[in-house]
Amino acid sequence: MTTSDANTPQSTENPGAHAAGRPVVAVIGDGQLARMMQTAAIELGQSIRLLAGAPDASAAQVCADVVLGDYRERADLDRAVAGADAVTFDHEHVPTEHLRALIDAGHSVQPGPDALVHAQDKLVMRRRLREIGAPVPPFAPIGSVADARAFAEAVHGAVCLKARRGGYDGHGVWFPDPGELPELVSRLLTEGVPLMAERKVDLVRELSAMCARTPSGEVACWPVVESVQRDGICVEAIAPAPGLPADLADQARALAERIAAELGVTGVLAVELFESRDANGRPRILVNELAMRPHNTGHWTQDGCATSQFEQHLRAVVDAPLGATDPTAAVTVMANTLGAAEEPAEPLAERFAAVWRRFPAARIHWYGKTHRPGRKLGHVNVTGADGSAAGIAATRRIAELAAGYIVDGVWADGHVERG
Amino acid sequence: MTTSDANTPQSTENPGAHAAGRPVVAVIGDGQLARMMQTAAIELGQSIRLLAGAPDASAAQVCADVVLGDYRERADLDRAVAGADAVTFDHEHVPTEHLRALIDAGHSVQPGPDALVHAQDKLVMRRRLREIGAPVPPFAPIGSVADARAFAEAVHGAVCLKARRGGYDGHGVWFPDPGELPELVSRLLTEGVPLMAERKVDLVRELSAMCARTPSGEVACWPVVESVQRDGICVEAIAPAPGLPADLADQARALAERIAAELGVTGVLAVELFESRDANGRPRILVNELAMRPHNTGHWTQDGCATSQFEQHLRAVVDAPLGATDPTAAVTVMANTLGAAEEPAEPLAERFAAVWRRFPAARIHWYGKTHRPGRKLGHVNVTGADGSAAGIAATRRIAELAAGYIVDGVWADGHVERG
Repeated sequence: MTTSDANTPQSTENPGAHAAGRPVVAVIGDGQLARMMQTAAIELGQSIRLLAGAPDASAAQVCADVVLGDYRERADLDRAVAGADAVTFDHEHVPTEHLRALIDAGHSVQPGPDALVHAQDKLVMRRRLREIGAPVPPFAPIGSVADARAFAEAVHGAVCLKARRGGYDGHGVWFPDPGELPELVSRLLTEGVPLMAERKVDLVRELSAMCARTPSGEVACWPVVESVQRDGICVEAIAPAPGLPADLADQARALAERIAAELGVTGVLAVELFESRDANGRPRILVNELAMRPHNTGHWTQDGCATSQFEQHLRAVVDAPLGATDPTAAVTVMANTLGAAEEPAEPLAERFAAVWRRFPAARIHWYGKTHRPGRKLGHVNVTGADGSAAGIAATRRIAELAAGYIVDGVWADGHVERG
Repeated sequence: MTTSDANTPQSTENPGAHAAGRPVVAVIGDGQLARMMQTAAIELGQSIRLLAGAPDASAAQVCADVVLGDYRERADLDRAVAGADAVTFDHEHVPTEHLRALIDAGHSVQPGPDALVHAQDKLVMRRRLREIGAPVPPFAPIGSVADARAFAEAVHGAVCLKARRGGYDGHGVWFPDPGELPELVSRLLTEGVPLMAERKVDLVRELSAMCARTPSGEVACWPVVESVQRDGICVEAIAPAPGLPADLADQARALAERIAAELGVTGVLAVELFESRDANGRPRILVNELAMRPHNTGHWTQDGCATSQFEQHLRAVVDAPLGATDPTAAVTVMANTLGAAEEPAEPLAERFAAVWRRFPAARIHWYGKTHRPGRKLGHVNVTGADGSAAGIAATRRIAELAAGYIVDGVWADGHVERG
């Protein structure tokens, strides 16, 4: 299917798809984040025009006004943004020069390229964060094997090597042994991967501080969450982060707010954080990554918060006032459903049914994607009224069991359903 | 725009609009109920094929697979339901013979015509309810002025005259003075309106008992709500119904369950109830109307309940297990935004902004319709943590002020925003 086929149902703008008197938002990108923006957009009457790569992409399945095209092509972007009140994204990969051109043409691009560059390039981000005094691990640009050797020496071998651009879900991050470092750096540089290194953090756990900011400067923060990672991929988020000291939570939220303001972020900002210890053993936070869009660690807000991150993002990018960010449950756990090595024989609909029979309050969110090992196919949100350690553990257990059954077709606890 | 124009973006089936391994539901009808089903469908990955009368209808604005056509035409219905796992509705007006033909052709029609006929014809419904012992006011078919006179005498002039079919939101209901009755009946019968009459109820208030039922027979009830009416239109719903004695609430829920089972309802059933007094002054309930689809008095579930009525309906019609119906707040108030006599000069987006600035936790839901006096354009949900009379009153006040500002552009309490 090509974008020039006039008979393609979704290849052209659909003027009927927009509500009178309500803003139209052009969303560049067709993944689950754009899909879940549409859920929020419907209720707000704030409609989406989507730039999608394929008519059956996750978000294209559920939007009425889809432009098929390539986000790297200026002409396709132009078609997607024509007449929209704001332009936003479900990823950070639109070329900066195109975004500048859109702004020059009078479009409201939220977040703008001057902010987005910090989510595109990890070195640019860390330099800027250090400039504004935000806590980051020691880091250095790596342009040669000599750079790598010097940095490794400075951090006593505790090197985390990162691709400056395009990494996600554990891709583009390496923890080489000192002996491997020169060869790895040499190979990556030869392949044209721009690199940086930072000191490996002595990690207690990962946290995420999220906020939204409007072009007018209003900011609203959500509670800080714990992000449970496996192989560099977020598998679970717990909101609020269990046992996080109030002062550290305040510090994390204040940090997110300050980064949003200093970098001119609009829409949702996720600040992925390392929780570590300082020299005196006291807990401290360090910035790991930034994402300028709704984020996996914010999915819990769909079922556990007054305003979901998707609604908040849509409100923020059109400079509407932000919604309340109060949690509506003592604890909310989000568990990702990541494609198993092999898709179970039991049909998906029956796996959903088994989960709902056992856990009628489990909230399944599904992205409409085909199975692939490790692929983010959906997530499950579970809320709990008991915020104690035992209550949190019980809520986590339900979310993990439910997500596990959906991907594996097996109850991890050996549960057998009585017929 | 006609349905035969192959270049119309939404006039044909869109195979890309459906998630692998998840059911496709054909929804007949293009109003706000279908629109809000799409919100739920996106997250369930359970996709909708819509039969819509116009490409810019409320639900057509937000669905990716829209068949344009007329629900009264068999050929259009056939196009809409082809390949769908289940067929359901956002209204009760599809001709029964078409539904039977769809079933004969092997389609799963939920609810089926044998149930739906009770939501289409008030006389058929009352006869059936009396048969199963459900409490209804005394009633009679009215085929002549003589019938009307006899019934009026029997009920001492307390006559409520109703069109058997097609009434809604106060249309098709009359409370004539005894002197007016003969002429009114004569005129309506001459116009071909099939009539029935029932004894005017000594009303305390209106309630709504809602449940969902699957083809397999699973039933889940929501808390009973109070439905506040103005000129025969629901303007507000309060969940749960304040001060409702537990035994009456149990009775109302049991009644809804029994009606669903006896009439073979599938999907969501709303039982609109009168709260009245018996001869001894004790509270009692009587059935007013039935709706076999999501209902205005269930909109509160979107923000105040574990499972919304729209998700529950979509799960029920494909015979999936039902979700939990526990409220997530002590009180949730839904206020309708009904088009004012004249649309305010202040743009809609600015009215939304004013509401959000004053009430950041107010949840606005918008249907994408153009303004028309009295038209249901959207609703506002507000939750409260305080279920006392004062807490409920405060929550109602916020919902009413918010909905009022959206339609009137004026704060009913004289509030002036500080700049």
